[in-house]
Amino acid sequence: MSPDRATPGTAPGEEPPPPSGRVATPIAASEDELALVSFGPDGLVPAVVQDAADGAVLMLGYMDEEAVRRTLRTGRSWFWSRSRQEYWCKGETSGDRQWVRAVRYDCDGDALLVVVEQDGKGACHTGERSCFYRSFGAEYGGPAARDDSAVG
Amino acid sequence: MSPDRATPGTAPGEEPPPPSGRVATPIAASEDELALVSFGPDGLVPAVVQDAADGAVLMLGYMDEEAVRRTLRTGRSWFWSRSRQEYWCKGETSGDRQWVRAVRYDCDGDALLVVVEQDGKGACHTGERSCFYRSFGAEYGGPAARDDSAVG
Repeated sequence: MSPDRATPGTAPGEEPPPPSGRVATPIAASEDELALVSFGPDGLVPAVVQDAADGAVLMLGYMDEEAVRRTLRTGRSWFWSRSRQEYWCKGETSGDRQWVRAVRYDCDGDALLVVVEQDGKGACHTGERSCFYRSFGAEYGGPAARDDSAVG
Repeated sequence: MSPDRATPGTAPGEEPPPPSGRVATPIAASEDELALVSFGPDGLVPAVVQDAADGAVLMLGYMDEEAVRRTLRTGRSWFWSRSRQEYWCKGETSGDRQWVRAVRYDCDGDALLVVVEQDGKGACHTGERSCFYRSFGAEYGGPAARDDSAVG
């Protein structure tokens, strides 16, 4: 077996652990719970991703029913990319993985809140920790842009 | 002037202060900033509402451009109701007002994060503090439903 095919101590076909050492924890949701989710006309529901460490809102993505099921089953965050028209598992390419600790659904069932432990430098493809790194009115003395505080 | 038309100490036509004593703080956004917001085919953008006090995600609503402008101008949270097809200002009927402290936009400009001070018992019409009061898998020993912790 060539060294590029496996990490020492890892069995063939077994994924090496991430640098963070975090592990996936599947969530055993019932079909009754899943039936409470209301998908839009496009089959999607918005999913807000929040950092379990400090409550920072990291990003917003969209899930169809299959992405919700994959997220619950794998303990990793799965989304449907509207631009690429394909499923994606956050961090699979960048290494900035999200380890799902809870998935909540709102009173109307038409929005989800995914609470995660975030690997790497953050959730945003720009390199920022949160995708919401800019505030309106910052140039007028409002909350600073690229403020990395957890809230506001 | 009849007593039901004004609160003592309040000038005619002037709204009495809310019980919380909180005040609105308009946000002076520029047209350049507003142009960065990308509205969907339905003219709407999802707006996540987060509590400034502890980072709890309270609700998700939708804004069109007019609702974004009203939110920034008035310092109160305005949404477009997809079911009622009308604007609504959160808490105007219930008293559970939201005092906007920052409005952030994400890397793609297609989602907003509204950081608020929340009046009253919370944001949800059910009486819960957050609309996201239920977790998948709670019946299997997952995170407790109606857990009111800030995160998760």
